[in-house]
Amino acid sequence: MVNSERLWSRIQELALIGKTVDDGVNRFSYTLEEHAANEKVKQFMEEAGLEVSYDAVGNLIGSKAGEEDLPTILIGSHVDTVPNGGKFDGALGVLTGIEVMQSLQEQGINLRHPVKVIAFKDEEGTRFGFGLLGSRAVAGHLTHEDLERKDQQGISIREAMLERGFNPDKLHTAEMDHVKLYLELHIEQGKILESQGVSVGNVTGIAGPLWLKVKVVGEAEHAGATPMGQRKDPLVAASLMIAEIEKLASSYPDAVATVGSLSLTPGGVNVIPGTVEFTIDLRDVQEDIRDRLESQIREFADQIGRDRNIEVVIEELQRVSPVLCSDDIQAVIQESISELEVPVVSLPSGAGHDAMQFNGLFPVGMIFVRSKDGISHNPKEFTSREDAKAGADVMLKTLLKLDQE
Amino acid sequence: MVNSERLWSRIQELALIGKTVDDGVNRFSYTLEEHAANEKVKQFMEEAGLEVSYDAVGNLIGSKAGEEDLPTILIGSHVDTVPNGGKFDGALGVLTGIEVMQSLQEQGINLRHPVKVIAFKDEEGTRFGFGLLGSRAVAGHLTHEDLERKDQQGISIREAMLERGFNPDKLHTAEMDHVKLYLELHIEQGKILESQGVSVGNVTGIAGPLWLKVKVVGEAEHAGATPMGQRKDPLVAASLMIAEIEKLASSYPDAVATVGSLSLTPGGVNVIPGTVEFTIDLRDVQEDIRDRLESQIREFADQIGRDRNIEVVIEELQRVSPVLCSDDIQAVIQESISELEVPVVSLPSGAGHDAMQFNGLFPVGMIFVRSKDGISHNPKEFTSREDAKAGADVMLKTLLKLDQE
Repeated sequence: MVNSERLWSRIQELALIGKTVDDGVNRFSYTLEEHAANEKVKQFMEEAGLEVSYDAVGNLIGSKAGEEDLPTILIGSHVDTVPNGGKFDGALGVLTGIEVMQSLQEQGINLRHPVKVIAFKDEEGTRFGFGLLGSRAVAGHLTHEDLERKDQQGISIREAMLERGFNPDKLHTAEMDHVKLYLELHIEQGKILESQGVSVGNVTGIAGPLWLKVKVVGEAEHAGATPMGQRKDPLVAASLMIAEIEKLASSYPDAVATVGSLSLTPGGVNVIPGTVEFTIDLRDVQEDIRDRLESQIREFADQIGRDRNIEVVIEELQRVSPVLCSDDIQAVIQESISELEVPVVSLPSGAGHDAMQFNGLFPVGMIFVRSKDGISHNPKEFTSREDAKAGADVMLKTLLKLDQE
Repeated sequence: MVNSERLWSRIQELALIGKTVDDGVNRFSYTLEEHAANEKVKQFMEEAGLEVSYDAVGNLIGSKAGEEDLPTILIGSHVDTVPNGGKFDGALGVLTGIEVMQSLQEQGINLRHPVKVIAFKDEEGTRFGFGLLGSRAVAGHLTHEDLERKDQQGISIREAMLERGFNPDKLHTAEMDHVKLYLELHIEQGKILESQGVSVGNVTGIAGPLWLKVKVVGEAEHAGATPMGQRKDPLVAASLMIAEIEKLASSYPDAVATVGSLSLTPGGVNVIPGTVEFTIDLRDVQEDIRDRLESQIREFADQIGRDRNIEVVIEELQRVSPVLCSDDIQAVIQESISELEVPVVSLPSGAGHDAMQFNGLFPVGMIFVRSKDGISHNPKEFTSREDAKAGADVMLKTLLKLDQE
């Protein structure tokens, strides 16, 4: 069993870094706040007896040698956040991995396999509109072209990496091989575990996100001197699309579609906007349904553009395939949960996770812990101390069992 | 008929004062450039046989006595500009007034009514964020409190007036009475005349803007883990409102409604927005129509809020009463236009003008001339020599007719 007091106090301590006035957290990749959070986690890793280093892209890795010459078990999550995010999303998984390793060390338990606990760089994609950056690098999927993406200040990922002292030229050195499996604990960010009255759950798979950026180009003109019939207003066009996106997604049982960011120029009260840009996040556990929804949205957007003589450009930001968790690992997680509590609940993940990048490379397993009211990406995000302990205990039991396989 | 060569050369000569590198114009109230422009206009007024003086706040007034003891006809506009503004906005109206008076003098025509041609101080409000300064003073609306407003350097209007030798303590002396009517020629700053293929138009009224700020508060949640049916998405709610605002405004002949700025938080690609704020700019020359449109928009927004269990708060930012142009003066302007060209186009002014200050004091009439591509407040602002002449001819004919009434 883990030391829940230490785990809980580290959660609170880490949440002070990047803390917002609303008691939320702002930690965006390669910023000073996010770097300070990694340095704090580095200190925790060292306290847990791990050997700590950053890789070329900035993933923070705490390593423990195994007793035998076997492939590595990875345990990971992230410490970056969405804007004004919560204290648990990502952070809980990293801190649980560290707590499990520290508890094992204190209990004098040595593992057969080497273990690496990883805080992946930029899972959320807040700053550059491109998430799972660190896990892409570990999977060998990150390219030099990806690093040319820019934030809103025009700073590229590459420049941001250099600014924090990392080495984009050597991004390929972040790739890992000889990996046995990947384990991640994360808050559910939904209400299923809460509605079932359980603290921990086994994840069956992850619905991969498809991200699109829609640019709508109209004509900026004087709000008072341009009759309604002579306008090319891209915001009205975008609004029709956003309303339709909700309608289309709602016609499928599990699909979700979200417009989470929108910006317009020039932005004067008395000026018709000239350009509107917004993002779409599309998800379904079934890839064919997600693809069908995407086609319907593109078709509708193009139709609005034609009807209104307005230019509509849709760019794909990322397209991640849904991932199924390993049946073997799921069985071990279920067994570990059953030793703590009944019933054992298995559920899909609607949110994306770093584990997605490892699809086809090595087996992955995920443990979810209950989120209060299902709230996440919000200062009100909360997981109780007891649930965090239960999740960490399941992680420890799961690790011990998998180490024997 | 007027001397179009003289009018055109004065437009070009005046545009040299405050000329920017982009071939635009910077003339902000009480600066040396703006004062130099007034001195140039003073010279033109003297050439036109007018008796010239500045009033206490710096309005430049060129007066011509009438043959009979009758109330004064005012002809006005302004020579100050927005930052990097155009050569025609304001300046054309002042120079047209001067040209009309000079042509009448050359043709030996004396008017029954006294006439004052006025270059109003600070119509644009660029420097102090407070426009229509000179016309407020003439209308008796300017207060000593207004003069305490400061520019970005912390200089108050009062101090700026004193610096140029005017007399803020006597601002009440700028108020005019015994006024028969006010006439103004201005560039359209829109595309209606261009789309109708005419050079000059009759203005029906000035649509005072009503500005609202709408705040829509939903719940920020994870885009992947929150089923469509469980969301409180304020951006979808706002989008439905924005689409409806266009539809409602389009159902009236002259009303315009614009959502020019919109911001949302938190703004992550994979986060359902928590709060959306947007502005609405509503205009119509008829206040009852604008009020009805406002009610319909408020009703629809509240309905969306109730349907979706989302909070909607609407705040009023400013409410300027529209001004209707005098039916009598409009009839005279239409007749004067019809003597030059067909068809006679009547249109509302979406932009604000000095004439607004005279609402309820004396009748106003406005003549619009065609703006190339509807562009204004920009170095590309252009009105052709032919259109300027046509506008001035209409002004002259209108003045002669009104003088007989």
